[in-house]
Amino acid sequence: MPDSPASVSRRRLLGTAGAAGAAALVVGGAAGAAGGAAVREGPDPLSSVGSGSVPFHGTHQAGIVQPAQAHGHLVAFDLVPQADRKAAAALLRRWSDAAAEMTQGRVPQGDESGVALDAGPSSLTITFGFGHSFFDRTGLTAKRPTALDPLPAFTADALDAKRSNGDLWVQIGADDALVAFHALRLLQKLAVGTAKPRWQMNGFNRTPGATEQPMTGRNLMGQIDGTNNPKPSDANFSTRVFVPEDRSGADAWMAGGSYAVFRRIRMLLDSWDNLSLERQERVIGRRKSDGAPLSGGTESTRADLNKVGPDGVLAIAGDAHIRVASAATNRGAAMLRRAFSYHDGFLDDGAPDAGLLFIAWQADPLKGFTPVQRKLDRGDGLSRFLRHEASGLFAVPGGCEPGEYVGQRLLEG
Amino acid sequence: MPDSPASVSRRRLLGTAGAAGAAALVVGGAAGAAGGAAVREGPDPLSSVGSGSVPFHGTHQAGIVQPAQAHGHLVAFDLVPQADRKAAAALLRRWSDAAAEMTQGRVPQGDESGVALDAGPSSLTITFGFGHSFFDRTGLTAKRPTALDPLPAFTADALDAKRSNGDLWVQIGADDALVAFHALRLLQKLAVGTAKPRWQMNGFNRTPGATEQPMTGRNLMGQIDGTNNPKPSDANFSTRVFVPEDRSGADAWMAGGSYAVFRRIRMLLDSWDNLSLERQERVIGRRKSDGAPLSGGTESTRADLNKVGPDGVLAIAGDAHIRVASAATNRGAAMLRRAFSYHDGFLDDGAPDAGLLFIAWQADPLKGFTPVQRKLDRGDGLSRFLRHEASGLFAVPGGCEPGEYVGQRLLEG
Repeated sequence: MPDSPASVSRRRLLGTAGAAGAAALVVGGAAGAAGGAAVREGPDPLSSVGSGSVPFHGTHQAGIVQPAQAHGHLVAFDLVPQADRKAAAALLRRWSDAAAEMTQGRVPQGDESGVALDAGPSSLTITFGFGHSFFDRTGLTAKRPTALDPLPAFTADALDAKRSNGDLWVQIGADDALVAFHALRLLQKLAVGTAKPRWQMNGFNRTPGATEQPMTGRNLMGQIDGTNNPKPSDANFSTRVFVPEDRSGADAWMAGGSYAVFRRIRMLLDSWDNLSLERQERVIGRRKSDGAPLSGGTESTRADLNKVGPDGVLAIAGDAHIRVASAATNRGAAMLRRAFSYHDGFLDDGAPDAGLLFIAWQADPLKGFTPVQRKLDRGDGLSRFLRHEASGLFAVPGGCEPGEYVGQRLLEG
Repeated sequence: MPDSPASVSRRRLLGTAGAAGAAALVVGGAAGAAGGAAVREGPDPLSSVGSGSVPFHGTHQAGIVQPAQAHGHLVAFDLVPQADRKAAAALLRRWSDAAAEMTQGRVPQGDESGVALDAGPSSLTITFGFGHSFFDRTGLTAKRPTALDPLPAFTADALDAKRSNGDLWVQIGADDALVAFHALRLLQKLAVGTAKPRWQMNGFNRTPGATEQPMTGRNLMGQIDGTNNPKPSDANFSTRVFVPEDRSGADAWMAGGSYAVFRRIRMLLDSWDNLSLERQERVIGRRKSDGAPLSGGTESTRADLNKVGPDGVLAIAGDAHIRVASAATNRGAAMLRRAFSYHDGFLDDGAPDAGLLFIAWQADPLKGFTPVQRKLDRGDGLSRFLRHEASGLFAVPGGCEPGEYVGQRLLEG
């Protein structure tokens, strides 16, 4: 409904504008045809944080190739017992319609909550996925891709089933906390009667503008994280991240989609912080200050895995994280990582309950996350400072066009 | 140590600067005298979010009169059994020294964590307070102000003792999540052996720049919150918020200080959202869209509590929140509110665990929070949508000068 006349901006007018006019502009469906674009003219004065907007419609869903925002919510839902495939389809339509509005800074019809009023879209993205259990629940088992087969067990796993998997999965990201919360809350309300939250987690990244210029972010171990992430400009980016658009067969509905592997990875920060800076850098294989590989250069220099120092020792240790994780040692396996840090206070033993809400995007988990994690699980020196506490694997279909909803080709195909 | 030669910025250099130079600039104590201000010249190009900085030293502690930042951490500590007054004094010195560095965007000596590297100060403030129990624990009972006497019980209270009070209290705020986390984590590490975290909570506000221009923020009920907050330009602001600087007697050490009342206030959002917009506005007494009082005007218009509509009904209802909370009906009692929203997922019954980390600042709680809350507790129509789940009252001493630490006049007086 992007061009519906009831579609209204959520910006509040200050100053000399009459109060009645302001109310007409910002109040939801009640404003009706009185709302409109005519009130404000000239270039939009919203600052860059608020004015950032990501199209909802398109070949791929939003929230995959865009940089991770300052605030993230991950939430999984299970269908309630009485919900069938038709009810699930209706939910996906409600969700898609609301997401199309909110991501453009508009107030979805009937939404009077007001939490996001005044703010611009703030780069809000909302991404929907289906878990393994969704297909049996809705009689769509025949359409379940083999790529959704459960991930193998890893020795570092200490998974909590209650915070893992789920029928449906939603990834929300925005550069403003209230915009993100508002989206989460509205989607939850739209699900009432059809699906219940199974688990929900909050994450964060650096605020845009906190650094002098855009930089690769840091994680809660202090390390620059994401240097070697595939870039949309890479020649093979699309084939690695997205299911081909000409996909045919039982999972043709996944054309243009991607598979998301989610892992809640707690960092054992007390142990980590007890290492000297030098030992931390050996575990990672990069310098903490600027992210340069220990083989030399700057952050963007390709790591020389064969370089030996004057002491005859490998510059990048045999079990260094960047060696074990590198595409060069994984037959080219690659995934697009898009993570949020999390911090939920401290645990009973006083250790911080903090780490990474790791999300990896790939065309096929068997060629992305799974082989890389198998290797890390065996040989990564970083593993002993991490605990994988929750896990999920979700089929994230391609995007939809106006008038359609996400998952329509699955649910009505 | 603000001008110590070991004091180094945490900004990362990109581009053509040599890697060695970059490392010297950003690595902590290890950089030693090699770090310095000579590398970068001209105006600081940090964006406004990162470059915002609040002085740590001064008559009052920072984090009281400044607008609440986008990210907040509240944490209370209890002294460990073997810690005495001398140990507490040493902790406050370590904390003050580290806070003086971090709030100016510098790396405290010996801090190798790196989590805040690259970012500017991001308006970081760190504020220290003492709870009722601190004084008995440290043999300072004679110096405990009567203003720290426990708050009265209120009927809306459902307080969790484990998440209430504490010997020491720290309020951390910053516009970048990693800067805030880094400060919390370092203060926790500096406390090891002297004090243990008792409880810790995370909160948030709108990101600077998410709206077109600075505006009064909204809470998770969607309502504009803080319109009538005292402003530093008000004639009686200082006397309401701060203990006089010429205070004498047993609590002379509180000169220039303030009392913080903390309340974790859960919002019953499912019940709230079931009300129509009109009923929500009657409960508050203001229009949701723009915050104007229901007696007319705009957000900044003074509410006319006596106005009666053409239907003979009070424009602002008898139990409307702004009527019951207004200074006019509270013999002028006023406090400076400085809150963060919180959202910690959902509770077992599926309701959102979300609301307000309410912090009120006043020269005397008996003339600020206590009388207002007594009145709200009895007559506020909003009360039935709120649960006070945790509480704290802390004596927050005045600020310190370079070379001193917060609380020195108490601990060495």
